[in-house]
Amino acid sequence: MQLGVCYYPEQWPRSMWADDAKRMVELGITHVRIAEFAWSRMEPRAGEFVWEWLDEAVAVLAAAGLKLVLGTPTASPPKWLVDAHPDVLPVRADGTRWNFGSRRHYDISSDTYRRECVRIVSAMAARYGRHPSIVAWQTDNELGCHDTVPSYSAAALARFHRWLHLRYGTVGALNDAWGNVFWSMEYPSFDAIGLPNLTPTDANPIHLLEFRRFMSDEVASFHCEQIDVLRQHAPDADLLHNFMGFFTTFDHYRFAEGDALDVAAWDSYPIARTESIALPDEQKARYARTAHPDVSAFDHDRYRAIGRGRFWVMEQQAGPVNWAPWNPVPAKGMVRLWAYEAFAHGAELVSYFRWRQCPYAQEQMHSGLNLPNDELSPGGLEVQQAAREIAASPALSALGAAERAAVAVVFDYETQWMFEIQRHGRSFDYQTLAFDYYESLRELGLDVDIVPRNADLSAYRLVVVPSVAVMDDALVDQIERSTAQWVFGPRSGSKTNLFAIPSTLPPGALQRVLPIQVLEVETLRPTLAPALSIGDTDGVALHWREHVRANGETRIEAQFDDAWPAILSHGNVRYVAGWLSHALHREVLAQAARQAGIATQRLPDGVRIRRRGELTFAFNFGPELAQAPAPAHADFVLGHAQLNTGDVCAWRTVGD
Amino acid sequence: MQLGVCYYPEQWPRSMWADDAKRMVELGITHVRIAEFAWSRMEPRAGEFVWEWLDEAVAVLAAAGLKLVLGTPTASPPKWLVDAHPDVLPVRADGTRWNFGSRRHYDISSDTYRRECVRIVSAMAARYGRHPSIVAWQTDNELGCHDTVPSYSAAALARFHRWLHLRYGTVGALNDAWGNVFWSMEYPSFDAIGLPNLTPTDANPIHLLEFRRFMSDEVASFHCEQIDVLRQHAPDADLLHNFMGFFTTFDHYRFAEGDALDVAAWDSYPIARTESIALPDEQKARYARTAHPDVSAFDHDRYRAIGRGRFWVMEQQAGPVNWAPWNPVPAKGMVRLWAYEAFAHGAELVSYFRWRQCPYAQEQMHSGLNLPNDELSPGGLEVQQAAREIAASPALSALGAAERAAVAVVFDYETQWMFEIQRHGRSFDYQTLAFDYYESLRELGLDVDIVPRNADLSAYRLVVVPSVAVMDDALVDQIERSTAQWVFGPRSGSKTNLFAIPSTLPPGALQRVLPIQVLEVETLRPTLAPALSIGDTDGVALHWREHVRANGETRIEAQFDDAWPAILSHGNVRYVAGWLSHALHREVLAQAARQAGIATQRLPDGVRIRRRGELTFAFNFGPELAQAPAPAHADFVLGHAQLNTGDVCAWRTVGD
Amino acid sequence: MQLGVCYYPEQWPRSMWADDAKRMVELGITHVRIAEFAWSRMEPRAGEFVWEWLDEAVAVLAAAGLKLVLGTPTASPPKWLVDAHPDVLPVRADGTRWNFGSRRHYDISSDTYRRECVRIVSAMAARYGRHPSIVAWQTDNELGCHDTVPSYSAAALARFHRWLHLRYGTVGALNDAWGNVFWSMEYPSFDAIGLPNLTPTDANPIHLLEFRRFMSDEVASFHCEQIDVLRQHAPDADLLHNFMGFFTTFDHYRFAEGDALDVAAWDSYPIARTESIALPDEQKARYARTAHPDVSAFDHDRYRAIGRGRFWVMEQQAGPVNWAPWNPVPAKGMVRLWAYEAFAHGAELVSYFRWRQCPYAQEQMHSGLNLPNDELSPGGLEVQQAAREIAASPALSALGAAERAAVAVVFDYETQWMFEIQRHGRSFDYQTLAFDYYESLRELGLDVDIVPRNADLSAYRLVVVPSVAVMDDALVDQIERSTAQWVFGPRSGSKTNLFAIPSTLPPGALQRVLPIQVLEVETLRPTLAPALSIGDTDGVALHWREHVRANGETRIEAQFDDAWPAILSHGNVRYVAGWLSHALHREVLAQAARQAGIATQRLPDGVRIRRRGELTFAFNFGPELAQAPAPAHADFVLGHAQLNTGDVCAWRTVGD
Repeated sequence: MQLGVCYYPEQWPRSMWADDAKRMVELGITHVRIAEFAWSRMEPRAGEFVWEWLDEAVAVLAAAGLKLVLGTPTASPPKWLVDAHPDVLPVRADGTRWNFGSRRHYDISSDTYRRECVRIVSAMAARYGRHPSIVAWQTDNELGCHDTVPSYSAAALARFHRWLHLRYGTVGALNDAWGNVFWSMEYPSFDAIGLPNLTPTDANPIHLLEFRRFMSDEVASFHCEQIDVLRQHAPDADLLHNFMGFFTTFDHYRFAEGDALDVAAWDSYPIARTESIALPDEQKARYARTAHPDVSAFDHDRYRAIGRGRFWVMEQQAGPVNWAPWNPVPAKGMVRLWAYEAFAHGAELVSYFRWRQCPYAQEQMHSGLNLPNDELSPGGLEVQQAAREIAASPALSALGAAERAAVAVVFDYETQWMFEIQRHGRSFDYQTLAFDYYESLRELGLDVDIVPRNADLSAYRLVVVPSVAVMDDALVDQIERSTAQWVFGPRSGSKTNLFAIPSTLPPGALQRVLPIQVLEVETLRPTLAPALSIGDTDGVALHWREHVRANGETRIEAQFDDAWPAILSHGNVRYVAGWLSHALHREVLAQAARQAGIATQRLPDGVRIRRRGELTFAFNFGPELAQAPAPAHADFVLGHAQLNTGDVCAWRTVGD
Repeated sequence: MQLGVCYYPEQWPRSMWADDAKRMVELGITHVRIAEFAWSRMEPRAGEFVWEWLDEAVAVLAAAGLKLVLGTPTASPPKWLVDAHPDVLPVRADGTRWNFGSRRHYDISSDTYRRECVRIVSAMAARYGRHPSIVAWQTDNELGCHDTVPSYSAAALARFHRWLHLRYGTVGALNDAWGNVFWSMEYPSFDAIGLPNLTPTDANPIHLLEFRRFMSDEVASFHCEQIDVLRQHAPDADLLHNFMGFFTTFDHYRFAEGDALDVAAWDSYPIARTESIALPDEQKARYARTAHPDVSAFDHDRYRAIGRGRFWVMEQQAGPVNWAPWNPVPAKGMVRLWAYEAFAHGAELVSYFRWRQCPYAQEQMHSGLNLPNDELSPGGLEVQQAAREIAASPALSALGAAERAAVAVVFDYETQWMFEIQRHGRSFDYQTLAFDYYESLRELGLDVDIVPRNADLSAYRLVVVPSVAVMDDALVDQIERSTAQWVFGPRSGSKTNLFAIPSTLPPGALQRVLPIQVLEVETLRPTLAPALSIGDTDGVALHWREHVRANGETRIEAQFDDAWPAILSHGNVRYVAGWLSHALHREVLAQAARQAGIATQRLPDGVRIRRRGELTFAFNFGPELAQAPAPAHADFVLGHAQLNTGDVCAWRTVGD
Repeated sequence: MQLGVCYYPEQWPRSMWADDAKRMVELGITHVRIAEFAWSRMEPRAGEFVWEWLDEAVAVLAAAGLKLVLGTPTASPPKWLVDAHPDVLPVRADGTRWNFGSRRHYDISSDTYRRECVRIVSAMAARYGRHPSIVAWQTDNELGCHDTVPSYSAAALARFHRWLHLRYGTVGALNDAWGNVFWSMEYPSFDAIGLPNLTPTDANPIHLLEFRRFMSDEVASFHCEQIDVLRQHAPDADLLHNFMGFFTTFDHYRFAEGDALDVAAWDSYPIARTESIALPDEQKARYARTAHPDVSAFDHDRYRAIGRGRFWVMEQQAGPVNWAPWNPVPAKGMVRLWAYEAFAHGAELVSYFRWRQCPYAQEQMHSGLNLPNDELSPGGLEVQQAAREIAASPALSALGAAERAAVAVVFDYETQWMFEIQRHGRSFDYQTLAFDYYESLRELGLDVDIVPRNADLSAYRLVVVPSVAVMDDALVDQIERSTAQWVFGPRSGSKTNLFAIPSTLPPGALQRVLPIQVLEVETLRPTLAPALSIGDTDGVALHWREHVRANGETRIEAQFDDAWPAILSHGNVRYVAGWLSHALHREVLAQAARQAGIATQRLPDGVRIRRRGELTFAFNFGPELAQAPAPAHADFVLGHAQLNTGDVCAWRTVGD
């Protein structure tokens, strides 16, 4: 349980640095991230490096006993670079070029820009790579943010051609694989293939998918070019990138493969996220000041998987922010709560954005731990409280590891891409469906691991697959060997790896363990909602519904009021033939957990619990006073069972 | 009553062709359309024709006894063509060019592309034009789809200049006719005239109108260049084009003039159409699975006029589709119902799209008569049922002609363009108004002919003109000679042919038979709705209302609650001074029908009837069980009077 | 109280001119505006001037006794000019160029176009500058309309560079002032600075603000180049420009500085304005046919300030118009009422747009005083009535001056720009907030002066500042010297002149007189509304709320239900810490007025009063019959106390 902060020495007079460092340490902060975005100060003119200010900043902070995370400055190429190489600017889907004047104005496929990045990162790493206080390096900042990936540039096209060539060998193979006979889309050569933008109607979905796969690889290789430099110069540091919440532009599992990173760090802005994602308006209002109870947890669990157990919150919201459609002030207690929540989910470090609110430029309405007049902000005061609590409690400061959960939820980036490319109905969104399943499990008091579709799932007792577009044989092999309960959501196995319908119909290979066939599917306008009941729970299908035929000995566990099956099962495998209203999802998962021998409890609205090491934490995100589900004589190490809005407590877990 | 299907042999292994043909025939299919979109297979490289596969496909299908419709492949120019002539790509209103990668990526005004089209069509027609099994040819596919018409290209501009030169002779005449003195819009020469896009505020409406007229002519001449080739090589075949529903980009009457086509074929997707058009949300939900009861009928009646009596459904929805905002599965029975509905309205052939769902590329979520695994789809099973019923019933298989109706509705494409150019209020749409009138008549149990404004109307007893922007003297001459009842909707006669207000005020020449003048007009926000009653029917004006002065002996039949006239009449001519809520439209038309001596009946909600030959058909599109309005001892040749959702019945008509 | 009209002789046959002039005079019209938009007739080809038609038009109108206002034709450059200099076309934010074909298709920063404008204005002014009947000149038409300002052109960029150079001296000073160290936005030279469009995310707010300030200056200098010519040739004429309602693209106070204009004229379209601005739907419906009661008054009072006491309505709505989302017909009486309303607020002249509805081109659906068939329109008949009433009443025809009000509302254009650049929440709009305050005061029966933030405010008893982004020391100095009551709305003093947060926190310098600090601010989604009560009035905060700390002896007058202060005061200064629901704003202002010793009265809904000279006018904009708040035995010079919708009355004021 360590606390950090993001700091931009270049934005403040040198005279403030030492005092800032001293106050950080006093507050209980151990880590400070600096230097990303500072390219124009490191290299004010091409090839003229100015390190003196950064040397001093590093020295001052290190002298105060702080550990440093250095960010590479490649998210903001300076103007002289853009003027010398205008082709580094990215191109929008409509063919216009983005301009200089904010950040992320670079084409991730530009060979020129990649060369420039290796150059600046090499210079920086050579100078600071072995500094004893620099414990970690971050590449770039929030890769893919602001829709600058994909870029529809000539550079992207040239690299896409090479990528396709490697993948398909001959253009004939590609034409066959893509089904380009359709609408005479056959290409005479790799060079004839274009980017899939500005087509009068839909481009071929496999064309779109391959472009997304390619772009995902581009993001990863851009990062890895910096990692290669950093590994060489900073062999002892943790290398990381700061990812974003609810962000699926690239495949984060694939990004993290090999030794691409040591820690998965991410930037957590729960209030703005709650305002931005597809939630019912009633929930956006209820949780406007606390954030939805699962919105951070979902990504904590996701990034714990991506970091193979190691994750940090690199930027944690410290007060109101500036970028959501509306930006309310968090409820009292939330800045403290979010820290404990992250730790409960396994975070090693929670680092706040930012030390002091910057009174000028784009983020002047983004709060920090200090107000622009340098007094601690309301959020800063809460961090102070949390730091003191942790320091005072051995149970909190020396928390055990986050153990494997009994329940796994498979989250798959390619499924997101495929169903974005082919929503089929305006309101279908895979990540939203996955979040609905996740929320259901969490409302039942369950800890959850999020895992990729190719994970080893043998140790889980319940595996939930909200959907997975492509049903690998390997996954079905795991099911065949498994005694766990398996729940599959709609559209599972609906596509091949080449974005086609399986020849045996969906759910494809899953039929080996669950003999059903999806004959027809439909998307549902909000006013068209087939009804159904599961046990005592009534509800409807939303967005999506399937007409499924049960073959063999498949059981129909529930059906819609027009007699089409809603839940089908065979052995330990369940299939849900539509997007069900929330209470039905919870009921299906409760039944499956029961069959898996996993105890569940229905938590009070807005309350969540999470076990870590020997402790169980409870959090209240709701506007009502609530009772934590602690046993009668629980041994509390933090707070107590009665939870106001924004309260947290923790007690020693005894059995389960 | 013949059934057809659309088939793409190039998308399937040759080994399947013979079996497919056999199963088509077994199903009761007589016609099969092939070859459109297959340019890249007919001519894989410039000038290299490969006919062998198509020869074999034609031979296999013909050998099975099927009649063939050949489509020209010009809706999908291959990549080599686009690369050789990049100027064939169309240009969007914002000035960017569309890309290759889907279909319809051609500029209809490109001389290069027109030359290429004549070349491929000549080669194809020369080879297959006299094949005895090829009974029809289709040009291109769904001309104007995907907003690729108009194209804002240099080619379009050059041809627009020539078109204007022919029409106006001198630029001075054009400046006068257009009123270009306004805002100094005077042009020094024809070449100085631009396309009416990207103007800071509205372009001159006559400029926009002439560009739409020009583009409409471009579509027609593009088609006719292929027709000229086909007439020469395939003198005995029916020539046609497959039009779309609710589609008004070009003037279909003008398109069909002369010998431009033998049959008007159109593509009917009633469920997706219901989801896409401007209907109250309550109706979109009610008819989500059956389609609105008039949405297909409206176009059946429209295309019967365009084909001068001969029309086909070239593509009929066979199950769920992929392109509407939401895509529900049709209710059981609808695929069968839609076939009978088309026949009842006079269709010669109903051809389904498509034989088998294609598991790859853009239309993989578009159903066919067979599932991707080659078993009959639910829709396919319904077609099988209909085919068997027809084969078993002489009354159905040898149905008489569709006779002239007693009621005509004038539908005018130019009126659509003029009121799109000048909606005046956000929610005014002429086609929606025309549809509302049509629906009213159909709810009253009436058969309707849709006719152009210059049709000979002398044989009708009731003529309904939902609106007609330009009131020709010729139309008023017809009224003067007529004993029929005439009903004119709002905005009738509000414009001259040069898009100006008539000097005598609207309704212009109509004042010869109905002495009224429209002093002021207004568009109405949804919360501003002047009330009125007609007889016992209460309602409001929506979208549009006029302040009309009754001159001479004009009678005021109804008035708004602020005393402005709502319905005015003189002799056999009525004028409706606003867009009335639906029940009021129905009441006005019921009164007019009564005066015309036409019997009406209020059909149950969702039920429609249609007479053809000696039969009356009844259809139930509503979710409730309903009773067909058959006489007590009706002689049923299909079904019976009790109609579930999706049911159809037919009995022998005795008098009316 | 003089009446005028806009007339376009070039649009009508010469044979009509004399009769038109005669009928204008008969109607009571004294002023007629002509010639703007007629460039293509004055100069049909480059350098070939044709004045003969304009000579005759001027002669005919002058001979009838009419006074003339001449408009320069620069809002519509002719095609030959655009073809000779394509760079005069403006560039949109997305980088595409606007086309010829409507109006305002010029780049206000084009040196070429400015030269052309000086040329045509010089020629015109030299010919007509000293004509005795030409009493005024108008430059251009509605500068900034149709979003053609700003233009993102190379010309604009070059002039922006010069403007920045003059303002900052060195690029280093600019980088420091803008905080360009943030995100490495530092510029190596002035020439390296771009326009702030097409950035992947927000541009630096000071970059955006400086570009808006520059563009505002561009509009002013464009106008002044014509004024310089006109002053020279027409030394005795009133020079003016016709501004628009609710229009804030440029700083109108700054525009009017020096001798840039003699009269502030503006174009008043109250019905379309009501439909277009951000009003609750319920109010848009209630006032659809009368316009909102304050929508014209707000701009009358604003332009009276801009004209330093002298203002005209250059174009007054005379019936239904064509450009709002919906365009209803005004209620009977409104065309007359709007004239009296303008006079009551101090207008010297009310000039109607336009003499006769033009049956062709873009504005054919825009009414005038005559219908296209040349009979008086309903609006024309109302103007006739008003003209006769005025002529018959010495009290009306010789009305006194509009005196200074007791209440001032500060309206500040830069505040609008800054809060547009940084709304922080989707629904925050400064002008809407200012309008809400204005409406509150008017509902209390108060006359209001609108003033710039740097006005001398010493004579007012109540000064209302709905918000002012930058709190000048000069303004605080005025407060210190003042015995008036002061009310400041939220976000006051929240920014420095360089778009940064003040180092002492908001409200910046206001803390000298009101010791408070804004710690955090928040924007509120519609479903998140902190409640509060002031006296008996209940309500909520909308859109925006602040967490304020009261320092020193500041009093908390009201607080939100979560205990944060809502109204704070110190001495005679009040601060409102949020955007309150309307009734609360009215209550706060009523309390402040009471303390200032200003009598208020709650007028009936929809009724407004305004004093001018010795008269008090009352107007009823509501749909209900209402009673004017006249004393028992008032001496009415117009109408009487009972007011139907659209009625007006006036009586001699006795004391107050």
